[in-house]
Amino acid sequence: METFHVVPEAQHNALIAAAYRHRGFLADEADEGARFCAEASRHGIRTHNGIKALHLDHLFGSGSKGCVPGAQIEERASKFKAAKIWNANRKLGQSTAYRAMAEAMRLADEFGVGTVSVDNAFHYLWGGGYVMDAAKKGYIAYTNCTAALAEVVPFGGKFPTLGTNPHSWGFPTTDAVGYPIVIDWATSVVAMGRVQQLAREGKNLPPDAAVDENGVPTTDPKKAKFLLPFGAHKGYGLSLINEIVAGFIGGALPTVRNRWSQAEAVGEKGTCCFFFQVIHPDAISGGAFAMGRNQSQNVKAVIADVLGHGNEKCMLPGQLEAGWAKHTAAAGGLLFTAAEIAAFNELATEAGQPLWDAAAFKTVTI
Amino acid sequence: METFHVVPEAQHNALIAAAYRHRGFLADEADEGARFCAEASRHGIRTHNGIKALHLDHLFGSGSKGCVPGAQIEERASKFKAAKIWNANRKLGQSTAYRAMAEAMRLADEFGVGTVSVDNAFHYLWGGGYVMDAAKKGYIAYTNCTAALAEVVPFGGKFPTLGTNPHSWGFPTTDAVGYPIVIDWATSVVAMGRVQQLAREGKNLPPDAAVDENGVPTTDPKKAKFLLPFGAHKGYGLSLINEIVAGFIGGALPTVRNRWSQAEAVGEKGTCCFFFQVIHPDAISGGAFAMGRNQSQNVKAVIADVLGHGNEKCMLPGQLEAGWAKHTAAAGGLLFTAAEIAAFNELATEAGQPLWDAAAFKTVTI
Repeated sequence: METFHVVPEAQHNALIAAAYRHRGFLADEADEGARFCAEASRHGIRTHNGIKALHLDHLFGSGSKGCVPGAQIEERASKFKAAKIWNANRKLGQSTAYRAMAEAMRLADEFGVGTVSVDNAFHYLWGGGYVMDAAKKGYIAYTNCTAALAEVVPFGGKFPTLGTNPHSWGFPTTDAVGYPIVIDWATSVVAMGRVQQLAREGKNLPPDAAVDENGVPTTDPKKAKFLLPFGAHKGYGLSLINEIVAGFIGGALPTVRNRWSQAEAVGEKGTCCFFFQVIHPDAISGGAFAMGRNQSQNVKAVIADVLGHGNEKCMLPGQLEAGWAKHTAAAGGLLFTAAEIAAFNELATEAGQPLWDAAAFKTVTI
Repeated sequence: METFHVVPEAQHNALIAAAYRHRGFLADEADEGARFCAEASRHGIRTHNGIKALHLDHLFGSGSKGCVPGAQIEERASKFKAAKIWNANRKLGQSTAYRAMAEAMRLADEFGVGTVSVDNAFHYLWGGGYVMDAAKKGYIAYTNCTAALAEVVPFGGKFPTLGTNPHSWGFPTTDAVGYPIVIDWATSVVAMGRVQQLAREGKNLPPDAAVDENGVPTTDPKKAKFLLPFGAHKGYGLSLINEIVAGFIGGALPTVRNRWSQAEAVGEKGTCCFFFQVIHPDAISGGAFAMGRNQSQNVKAVIADVLGHGNEKCMLPGQLEAGWAKHTAAAGGLLFTAAEIAAFNELATEAGQPLWDAAAFKTVTI
């Protein structure tokens, strides 16, 4: 059980937008950044809430060379009607991603499937948020990106040359199961933040999650220096996909990505790439569902079969996030711990905004 | 080291095609089936060579209700120009898959991206073969399918309600690394055939690969009854993708798929679904590659970075298959063991074809 302060969403969004504007972002960028952080908090994604978003912006974004406030997206001319190619010019990742997914949905409406490939992108934080949003709007959505830093050792290797390279898939299953199924994870067993957390707590890592400085697997988080892909060669392959797709788009060498002094010294790029894809569910429907079911009822029946037969305790991907959204709705605001309220107040101080009075928020225990 | 007989490809293809024709398949289906088996053998995919293909056809295909020789593919009317929807009417899987991938390549040429969704499909054997073929032709290709039988227990469950549900990605990297990178695997840790092989050899399974009849994980292959997804919830999510996509297309409930008496008794379908997607690499190219590189050179540089820095011993997905193709080319024919030659002769007897004289083939040791 943990106690949370209930922060009205408008109040949260006002602070986050002000913090982005204070760092030079345009009003629409700041609003998109705030909207995205609210979605992350609504769904219990504490690793990508407003505090983390602005911390990462400081480390790798507008505080470094990764992100340029006010940057304009340029579309590259292409003869391919269902596939757009954008140069984000290091625009805020959330703004770029929302707009790219909107464009991919428009393409899917027209062609059945659409892709938007983005070069010179800045970290979009939580890929699951964009595919969830598209899935809620009725689309099958996918995105991958190259993660900021190479922290993951290829299967059979010693040195980190891969990002944590996440994949995110969203499915329009709200009618079928009550929420969109969202499959969303990094291709490392754990994140580096988790290694640090376990080190602080004196706990061990799972096996085959990390290696020490010599590339030898270790479960001691204090000795762990680099991460391993999940599922041996299979997770390695999934991580490679992001690097290869980015390589075709225009991506940087993974070991110099976001390491600007190294990249610029040798004439390499330091930016990330995004890939978005949306499919209209009508564009894959054979229309011949058993027992007179419609498409959504068929998906519901398939899921019920998977989770039946003694598997009733299994979770669906996206279920935890949907549960958090219910807690948030019931509480009437976004849920933050006392420590998180204090961190938001650091942002308020930076941006010259009124501090939040923790005592003024109602609390809930979950 | 293992000794192989070198069978001229034309002789192999003639036998396999004759075996398919003997079972009622049309000449073009038989030729496509034979061509596919040759590709599997060329690339060392012994689990899906001609012997296995015709064995599976007997068990689940034309010998059961899964596959109908001479079936005609029907295209469903759709307003979406870049997404085709086919009813395969249980046509031979290899014929369906080759044609679907060819259509997806045509769509990618026109729109940048194209999908072909196939309902009422029969097992296409080795998904990697189709994406490898497309990648050799210059495309980024992907396919997934719902596997014939539910053998895999969802993460946190007890009963097998998922297929081994493979995913296959192919990338046109021949210029960059000498062969197409092909990422291709089932979402179970191991295949059921591997469990049986380990049981015969008295060896243990890896941890978390299988469960006993009560759903309890076991490393004893003799007690193993059902399979587990790789990578815990992550592999489970990947397996779910195939079921959900198939559910949207028109797919059967996984637990009755290919179990015709059960399916038909309750009015359910028993067929599999396929999903194919092709992207033209020009349709994702931002064109702004560092150091004056072109797209292929950029992919080459990214891969070199991943496999550098002490990772020189790492393999790329598709590398083993490319190595087998070199062995095959050097030997001047497809490579089969003595036991495999004997199995081919059983097919020859069934189809009324001349037996192969093992002593007449030259041999190589690899």
